[in-house]
Amino acid sequence: MDYEEIVEQLRPLFEGRRWKEVREKVEDFPAQDIAELILRLDKSQRIFLFKLLPRPRAAEVFSYLSAENQDGLLQDMTDHETRELVAGLTPDDRTALFQELPAEATQRLLELLPPGAQREARALLGYPAESVGRLMTPDYIAVRPDWTVSRSLQHIRSQREKAETINVIYVTDHDGKLLDALTIRRFIVADPDTQVGDLMDTHVTKISAFEDREKAVELVQRYDLTGLPVVDTEGVLIGTVTPDDIMDVAEAEATEDFQKVGGVGVLNFSLRDARISLLYKRRVGWLVLLVFINMFGGAIIASYEATIEAVVVLVTFLPLVVDTGGNAGTQSATLMVRALATGDVKTRDWLSLWGKEALVSVALGVTVAAAVWLLGLYRGGIEIAWVVALAMMAVVFVGSMIGMLLPFGLTRLRLDPATASAPLITSIADIAGILIYFVIATSLLGHML
Amino acid sequence: MDYEEIVEQLRPLFEGRRWKEVREKVEDFPAQDIAELILRLDKSQRIFLFKLLPRPRAAEVFSYLSAENQDGLLQDMTDHETRELVAGLTPDDRTALFQELPAEATQRLLELLPPGAQREARALLGYPAESVGRLMTPDYIAVRPDWTVSRSLQHIRSQREKAETINVIYVTDHDGKLLDALTIRRFIVADPDTQVGDLMDTHVTKISAFEDREKAVELVQRYDLTGLPVVDTEGVLIGTVTPDDIMDVAEAEATEDFQKVGGVGVLNFSLRDARISLLYKRRVGWLVLLVFINMFGGAIIASYEATIEAVVVLVTFLPLVVDTGGNAGTQSATLMVRALATGDVKTRDWLSLWGKEALVSVALGVTVAAAVWLLGLYRGGIEIAWVVALAMMAVVFVGSMIGMLLPFGLTRLRLDPATASAPLITSIADIAGILIYFVIATSLLGHML
Repeated sequence: MDYEEIVEQLRPLFEGRRWKEVREKVEDFPAQDIAELILRLDKSQRIFLFKLLPRPRAAEVFSYLSAENQDGLLQDMTDHETRELVAGLTPDDRTALFQELPAEATQRLLELLPPGAQREARALLGYPAESVGRLMTPDYIAVRPDWTVSRSLQHIRSQREKAETINVIYVTDHDGKLLDALTIRRFIVADPDTQVGDLMDTHVTKISAFEDREKAVELVQRYDLTGLPVVDTEGVLIGTVTPDDIMDVAEAEATEDFQKVGGVGVLNFSLRDARISLLYKRRVGWLVLLVFINMFGGAIIASYEATIEAVVVLVTFLPLVVDTGGNAGTQSATLMVRALATGDVKTRDWLSLWGKEALVSVALGVTVAAAVWLLGLYRGGIEIAWVVALAMMAVVFVGSMIGMLLPFGLTRLRLDPATASAPLITSIADIAGILIYFVIATSLLGHML
Repeated sequence: MDYEEIVEQLRPLFEGRRWKEVREKVEDFPAQDIAELILRLDKSQRIFLFKLLPRPRAAEVFSYLSAENQDGLLQDMTDHETRELVAGLTPDDRTALFQELPAEATQRLLELLPPGAQREARALLGYPAESVGRLMTPDYIAVRPDWTVSRSLQHIRSQREKAETINVIYVTDHDGKLLDALTIRRFIVADPDTQVGDLMDTHVTKISAFEDREKAVELVQRYDLTGLPVVDTEGVLIGTVTPDDIMDVAEAEATEDFQKVGGVGVLNFSLRDARISLLYKRRVGWLVLLVFINMFGGAIIASYEATIEAVVVLVTFLPLVVDTGGNAGTQSATLMVRALATGDVKTRDWLSLWGKEALVSVALGVTVAAAVWLLGLYRGGIEIAWVVALAMMAVVFVGSMIGMLLPFGLTRLRLDPATASAPLITSIADIAGILIYFVIATSLLGHML
């Protein structure tokens, strides 16, 4: 869909206040596309288009907007309009809205809700940030093991308005405890007189509402689930997580890891919409911290000033040597951070990975050393050639070790391995590289100093 | 599930050749868990456990193994066993297996298949690598618009063995052209006498088999689809992509981007299983290339040897200045690469993002400059302080610009923006940083040289 073109077509209709035509033009579009169109309109036109939408549609479109844009629309709405809109959201979309808004705005919106929805929303907001509880919807369909398939299908039909999804039907006992999760397919293909209990198998994958949402992503991906049941500490079914939310979380988590590895704080925001002050705040911390780390490198160089004065050509190879160590470290760290995030590698695998990494980095070090040996010979003679080549081997090895072990160490300390960002690894590897370089240089060139 | 514990329990059963007990122990586990267990067994035990599984189960378990492990199992099987196993795979899992195996092995397996499955497999392998065609399954269910809901449900029941999923039912005309995609929910809640045509709406999201699989991920995520129909150039329905495959692709694509940004070639392989030679190959190219790029930095330093000899303290600040530029560049590049990958930012947004980036980087540069001015004053006096502070401002700005514009430029040239890896950005920013530093130093300190 070419959004720009449609916006161009809408412009004269807006200017001529031809509301009916605006509505006819957009009402058949998927909600996601209407949301995109709204973003491309002038701020003043947004609310008009939004108010032209039929009510359930408006709620759906609203759920696809970012928190900032949602807030913008709400500010142009009356309390009555707000109440209708927020009541029309599904419980998980409502939680998503509330948790992004400033506390006062959330409070105001909560008070506009009918008592039942208000209680539900407060309960969902009671779960920790980034937990499964914040992600789930209590609108699932559950049947009993002693029901027949035909009675279950009747129940499913009667609950269809309430349920967000019917792809998975849950089986609970009279205490509400989760017994099984059955795909709708099982009900459709089964004989109508079969008892639900006979369709059940012994395994059901479930998750606690207090678990980290990343765990939910892992389970859905591993077992190819179309719905993940959420239970409380007693095993009572309290909600379900739908695959579309899982995909959004998986994307958000990958983005977070990306940003952390790049040495940026987590943006939690569209880069397109992010304000300059936010971008500054997310970047300045690491940048300044790294400056202080890099000062150690400067201090080491200062202590070797005599060496530099005696053999100035050494400085020529300094950036080469330290950068290569940082690059090798960034490579290992990236591989490790991602493998830990996808579950490809577990912390207990560290020893075998360490052995592999050691061998790989020695091979890489030898290759790189061979490449610079010739350059060293040409620029500074045979002794410089050996200093540079040996230093290269050492920094590639040490850099790789830092890059590999730091993410593991962080995981061990229950910190996020992605904190081992490329800039951090580079800076640490640089300090090590500077030290290694001058130690090797002073030992091999002792007679020249 | 604690795999290690179960493996421990299985060990004595294997040693005592108590096959029946082994089978009873594992047969109720989900296929994904059996696949994990197989990986943790000794190579010699793997094939035994695998052959103990009932046939459809074995095919399912097999589909969750990596290509290398699949190949390992196949080598221990007779032609007859292989034929049964491969025929039992779903068409999309079969394509996944064939495309990873060496060409001869694929050829041999294809010849073992019955003619119909062989033709189907060859057709799917005919689509380009990483295309939607390689991902889709032709096992979908389609109904006609003039059928009633009850006739459709009957058809769905009769096709259930064949279809991989029934969450989405497709509507096609008598030429096989795709008219609509309806969720199974619509059929369940509708009156049995309703015509399918009356359930249809005007919008259907579809994709060509030749499209890049990333496009399929984008569509499924955007429209929260439970199935994506695949059509040929005539609009004829030829397959469907299921959400579990989409999630796997999304994860694989994020991993690829991660590895590229880390300056590693795409591994396309589990880090845990990857051989040392593969890891070496994937890393050595970039590492050596970056050495050559870094040599320019060395050459610039060499041309300023006289300056360094006159003011040795300048070298102390060299790593600090160049690293900070690289860090700022890595930050911008990471933000851009990920935003381009998730579709948050489009190439046409570059100008507004450039303006924002310029302002952010000036603010960052001033902050960082203030921090090092004092250090410069303490270590080298007022003139050095100004050289270092000005150089810092300039390198943060230039580094950020390189980090931001390179991914955009690569996209413009239809190259992958993730090629702008952290090590590449760091190395380019370093060369710029060295030049900036010495140009500023020689202009400000001219009287000292």
